[in-house]
Amino acid sequence: MTARWLGDCAATGTITFDVDAESAILAHDLKYADHAMIMSHQAYGPDVGVPRLLDVLDQVGIQATFFMPGWVAKVRPRLASTIVDRGHEVAHHSYSHQSPTDLTDAAQHADFERACEVFASQGVEIFGHRAAMWEATSSTLDLVREFGLSYDSSLMGDDKPYRISADGVRPLAELPVHWSLDDWEQYAFLPSPAVGNVIESPAKVLEMWKLEIDAMLEFGSLFNLTCHPFLSGRPSRAVALRSLIEYGLEQGMRFATCRDVAADVLADSQVREVHQRHLITGTGDYPQTPGR
Amino acid sequence: MTARWLGDCAATGTITFDVDAESAILAHDLKYADHAMIMSHQAYGPDVGVPRLLDVLDQVGIQATFFMPGWVAKVRPRLASTIVDRGHEVAHHSYSHQSPTDLTDAAQHADFERACEVFASQGVEIFGHRAAMWEATSSTLDLVREFGLSYDSSLMGDDKPYRISADGVRPLAELPVHWSLDDWEQYAFLPSPAVGNVIESPAKVLEMWKLEIDAMLEFGSLFNLTCHPFLSGRPSRAVALRSLIEYGLEQGMRFATCRDVAADVLADSQVREVHQRHLITGTGDYPQTPGR
Amino acid sequence: MTARWLGDCAATGTITFDVDAESAILAHDLKYADHAMIMSHQAYGPDVGVPRLLDVLDQVGIQATFFMPGWVAKVRPRLASTIVDRGHEVAHHSYSHQSPTDLTDAAQHADFERACEVFASQGVEIFGHRAAMWEATSSTLDLVREFGLSYDSSLMGDDKPYRISADGVRPLAELPVHWSLDDWEQYAFLPSPAVGNVIESPAKVLEMWKLEIDAMLEFGSLFNLTCHPFLSGRPSRAVALRSLIEYGLEQGMRFATCRDVAADVLADSQVREVHQRHLITGTGDYPQTPGR
Amino acid sequence: MTARWLGDCAATGTITFDVDAESAILAHDLKYADHAMIMSHQAYGPDVGVPRLLDVLDQVGIQATFFMPGWVAKVRPRLASTIVDRGHEVAHHSYSHQSPTDLTDAAQHADFERACEVFASQGVEIFGHRAAMWEATSSTLDLVREFGLSYDSSLMGDDKPYRISADGVRPLAELPVHWSLDDWEQYAFLPSPAVGNVIESPAKVLEMWKLEIDAMLEFGSLFNLTCHPFLSGRPSRAVALRSLIEYGLEQGMRFATCRDVAADVLADSQVREVHQRHLITGTGDYPQTPGR
Repeated sequence: MTARWLGDCAATGTITFDVDAESAILAHDLKYADHAMIMSHQAYGPDVGVPRLLDVLDQVGIQATFFMPGWVAKVRPRLASTIVDRGHEVAHHSYSHQSPTDLTDAAQHADFERACEVFASQGVEIFGHRAAMWEATSSTLDLVREFGLSYDSSLMGDDKPYRISADGVRPLAELPVHWSLDDWEQYAFLPSPAVGNVIESPAKVLEMWKLEIDAMLEFGSLFNLTCHPFLSGRPSRAVALRSLIEYGLEQGMRFATCRDVAADVLADSQVREVHQRHLITGTGDYPQTPGR
Repeated sequence: MTARWLGDCAATGTITFDVDAESAILAHDLKYADHAMIMSHQAYGPDVGVPRLLDVLDQVGIQATFFMPGWVAKVRPRLASTIVDRGHEVAHHSYSHQSPTDLTDAAQHADFERACEVFASQGVEIFGHRAAMWEATSSTLDLVREFGLSYDSSLMGDDKPYRISADGVRPLAELPVHWSLDDWEQYAFLPSPAVGNVIESPAKVLEMWKLEIDAMLEFGSLFNLTCHPFLSGRPSRAVALRSLIEYGLEQGMRFATCRDVAADVLADSQVREVHQRHLITGTGDYPQTPGR
Repeated sequence: MTARWLGDCAATGTITFDVDAESAILAHDLKYADHAMIMSHQAYGPDVGVPRLLDVLDQVGIQATFFMPGWVAKVRPRLASTIVDRGHEVAHHSYSHQSPTDLTDAAQHADFERACEVFASQGVEIFGHRAAMWEATSSTLDLVREFGLSYDSSLMGDDKPYRISADGVRPLAELPVHWSLDDWEQYAFLPSPAVGNVIESPAKVLEMWKLEIDAMLEFGSLFNLTCHPFLSGRPSRAVALRSLIEYGLEQGMRFATCRDVAADVLADSQVREVHQRHLITGTGDYPQTPGR
Repeated sequence: MTARWLGDCAATGTITFDVDAESAILAHDLKYADHAMIMSHQAYGPDVGVPRLLDVLDQVGIQATFFMPGWVAKVRPRLASTIVDRGHEVAHHSYSHQSPTDLTDAAQHADFERACEVFASQGVEIFGHRAAMWEATSSTLDLVREFGLSYDSSLMGDDKPYRISADGVRPLAELPVHWSLDDWEQYAFLPSPAVGNVIESPAKVLEMWKLEIDAMLEFGSLFNLTCHPFLSGRPSRAVALRSLIEYGLEQGMRFATCRDVAADVLADSQVREVHQRHLITGTGDYPQTPGR
């Protein structure tokens, strides 16, 4: 019997977009606000990439999930609601795109809450969260529960969804991500802040991701793809993404929003469950004073 | 109705060369002036690459645009006029190839003006500008207007040309560039100053750029390619560039100088217009004191 | 006459897995113990990668060698014995995965011994060793002898096994490794700690390693492959590894555990022998005070 | 009329090996002398790579040039003469493999002379020079003349050989190198000292170099390839190099030693001549005080 979140398919795909826009750069250093080229490089995401990708999603007929920092939603007030109106999910991606591992717990709490307020003020209902830079701490998962969300999509402990339990509170669904299913490592490049190394051809990326689809169909995995509109919204990359989704559909994959997959994960008792305390490896037996 | 700058074609190509020669390295550190290998590596561009690329352009029968630092034109006094005599455009690429983001406004102004003086003294008329390192500031666009030029080619806010307006002054045409349409990220390598990571095969680069042409024909974009004669002037890369242009011509692309495309952009009221104040994202809602 | 360690085959393969789990990251900085994403990224290795790879090994019907830090065996008490029960070899990979070149001799000794104690307490017999990061010092080989092991697999002096002799003590078998036969350089990526540059497609890796098998069949070499379960345990990479082993079997390669190959190497007097003192190049003729 | 150095062929190839062994690492830091893995990684070059490559050269029937630091020749006293006895050229590659740009003129002179003494003491006649790291200064070319050599192979000012003239002294032949014709950027990898980024497949390298041969046959260039025995001596890379040379021979290329090509270059008045003072670009018009 296949897992509920697989539907009747051999694998499920969630196509996700991190709509970071300028925040991904401003989180490095506010000085970049005056660098016209870098700001235009990032603005391409919401201004050109998102409209093109929405058209691509229409062409292949699937729903996707757009993780958006609250700041991006605030400075472009119609962006989130337009995406929802086109039939897709908008989800929480911090307010400022600062990494949780760089913030105090209080600062992380304030940042998390501020994004919730932006989405609430725009009438956009939020069901899940992805940490900026994927760099969740153990506090992050507590915030996901505190603010009433049902899933997180920042961890890498499996290639199937799992549940994160904790004492006396409800479990969360975890829809795991991975570096190899992220367009950033394939396409991103900036000299300053130093981002990326090689700009790969969409031909290589398409081949690599098709191979992962093939293997995930064998193993019954979640193909949880992370794309960035300022990267994958460029012409040949948008075409490659369209080809990839068409390929998955031809192979019989199911594509769904993260929200829908998370609901299935929480309703299926067969899904693997990990206690939140086990997310952080105890270092009690690890040498505390390295012998150097 | 297609945009005027597309002609009757599905996409337009502008083949551009940044003839930086030694300036790209001297801007890092003047000590490299004594490193014979590095200087010869850069001199290859104007001495060997430019003549070969001019021949390639003759073979495919198109006109291109050569962005040149004023210093390069000055130390090689016949370089710019030879390029013009062969039927191509020479354009402004700063005097020293120092990044505008590293200069005070006064220093940027002096550098900009000095290049204009060199070209004027050589009888080479200039119509457009590309910032060194593409690192334009908001002042850069003011300089483009002040010195009477009609277009800039340093920003990345779209894959179609756009107009940059400002209050009480004439608009500029912007012919946007992108890291993925630059031979630097594919071919450049030096240990010191540290430049590049991997040296890619022209086969990969040709495949990647053909895919972008294919997609730009679908979306009606500007294929604005940036090459460097010290890189793309090498034998197999020059052959790959020739193949690429031949491929574009076979697909029905129009190739033109930046000057000609910019004139069409300024004459076509349908082109997207962006106000200059919007090039710099306001950071009023961005956390001014990151909570770290 | 072919060497004993080749069997009657043209080349021998040893498929090895370094089951580093979280230790590879904690050795950088203990702060990462609180980074939930990074810890989950590493836990994927023993939790998901090892079970999948054990299945893959069953499918192709070969025995492999799993190098494991003692700390990993201690915090996951059934991991090593499960691997042994499935028919494979578990071998010594330090206790903490700290590099020997960063440790004093005393600290390296204590680390080495602590791992031996863990494996002894779990009833797992150990025959060989691989240095953390492959960064063996001359003391490392003395430890391998002192603790009664028969082989090391950390050096790169050949692509065939060799023997390391020393005065008045028994020789060791060396099963050499190499960067080009390691999945780390092809697949690993983390922003912090900074790991990796490009994430390659399994298609590229499979092609590259098949070419090495082809050439090693010509030269009579040891195809000693190093994989990491958190990397090569991912779906399409596990499939590529399965294809690689199937390819080797089709070409007539022998696959064996490191323990078995080492036994043949020690029993065959025709194998090349290197005295331990020659592993470290004398620098007596090298300029002691570089003239800078 | 084709140039004398081309013979009657459309292009000439010089296959060269930089036999750096441990010196390439010791020049970074003498501490690496105690790192057994790194030393074995480098020793593979002369111990395993050179014998295999000599066999490969026999198979394809061409003569090659081996650039060797004097220190390498000294600590392996039969290495240089064995290479000469097999029909190839041994040439000067500094004594210590320290970069000339890091040395005072006096230190560079002493280093240069010391290598000459080693080769003289071994009865190995030297005709040409390649700077360590290719990092020649203007003093380097004076040393080449002072010690009676006829050619240098460190600069990158062309893809055909050229002559370097100077007032009142004899000209030198320059056989230019390039980063794209070097196996280092394709294959080298070490974490510490940090070397390399991606380990490429020999399939990619072979394709890239075949494309350069194809183009050089069109343009009449010198295919001056730099390989390192510790890199290109590995099984699949040695096979790829053999395939490359076979390909060049099939296309009608001539392969010769650097010494023979240099002799033709010096005897042919049609060859491009550059005055040594022009190797270093004057910076008189370059901003001496960058305006930052």
